[in-house]
Amino acid sequence: MSYGDAMNATNSRTRREERRAEIVRAALEVIAERGYRGASLAAVAERVGLTQQGLLHYFPTKDALLVAVLEERDQWDAVPDSRWRVDLLASLVEYNAMRPGIIQTFSALLGESVTEGHPARGYFTERYVRVRANMAGVLRTEYGDRLPNGLTPERAAPLLVAVMDGLQYQWLLDPESVDMPGAFRDFLALLGEEA
Amino acid sequence: MSYGDAMNATNSRTRREERRAEIVRAALEVIAERGYRGASLAAVAERVGLTQQGLLHYFPTKDALLVAVLEERDQWDAVPDSRWRVDLLASLVEYNAMRPGIIQTFSALLGESVTEGHPARGYFTERYVRVRANMAGVLRTEYGDRLPNGLTPERAAPLLVAVMDGLQYQWLLDPESVDMPGAFRDFLALLGEEA
Repeated sequence: MSYGDAMNATNSRTRREERRAEIVRAALEVIAERGYRGASLAAVAERVGLTQQGLLHYFPTKDALLVAVLEERDQWDAVPDSRWRVDLLASLVEYNAMRPGIIQTFSALLGESVTEGHPARGYFTERYVRVRANMAGVLRTEYGDRLPNGLTPERAAPLLVAVMDGLQYQWLLDPESVDMPGAFRDFLALLGEEA
Repeated sequence: MSYGDAMNATNSRTRREERRAEIVRAALEVIAERGYRGASLAAVAERVGLTQQGLLHYFPTKDALLVAVLEERDQWDAVPDSRWRVDLLASLVEYNAMRPGIIQTFSALLGESVTEGHPARGYFTERYVRVRANMAGVLRTEYGDRLPNGLTPERAAPLLVAVMDGLQYQWLLDPESVDMPGAFRDFLALLGEEA
């Protein structure tokens, strides 16, 4: 392969990657607006100026596109597990409050995932097992084997995750009334208090 | 109107009410399985042995049926606001853990409600304003103007609601791993502890 051929191959791979990323971003928007079951490949294709046939060249099925959307999800929180700290969680919630679109996408997907045979169900089930373990690790690093209130990190972890998710719904529905980062800081303070 | 006519009118009203209730129950099931956007009037009609045309005689639109479903939701927690107590909340969560179907319906609906123009959005937004106020009242009755940890009832209320909702998603996805009532009791203990 000549140098020129190699460059062309690289450019074409890059263009393909960029196009895929653009399609995934469009899918995130369409899911935020309509949910996954309400989303159509046609709507995603239209948003990026492709025909539905053209889109299928990148993602052969709606489920394949969902997989790419969920992989995208896994990218953002990609702080190595060992590097998470309680104060970083507060920053994450502050940051989330500045990106309602993406929080809307995943709150809608989480809601749908509990319906029968939903293609994101396995993803969320595994994700929560991982996230609870991860949060228990964060709490252990901060407090040792017992929090000041006597709970083990493993028992506090599902509460921590539940508060983050539950506040997102209240906040998405009514951002004027719900101070999501402030409420989450209140919860972290509760967790750190002596019994 | 003769006595017989009056009886017939009453019976026919009762039959109509029973039929409506049966349709609403079928709608709750279909929404649990497919979400609201994924639910069709045809699927609900089939479940109660009606044609779609027959169903429209009871509920002229899908949104009208949703309104009836949401009114049904409001029935269950219909303990008068002034009668709620913190220990009753723990019992409510125990009870919820015995009825995954209905919790699935409303977790799916809550998730969808954050998407654009969803017909249940107004309902959930108003419901949360009311539920947060209600929970603040419960906490005030229990603890006065400050919880032992120093939070006001108004600041603790969104956390209480968030934990209930958030735990439901984790539990619906993975009932073997998540002890929803136990985790909720842990949270209530946290709320009642001194700073």
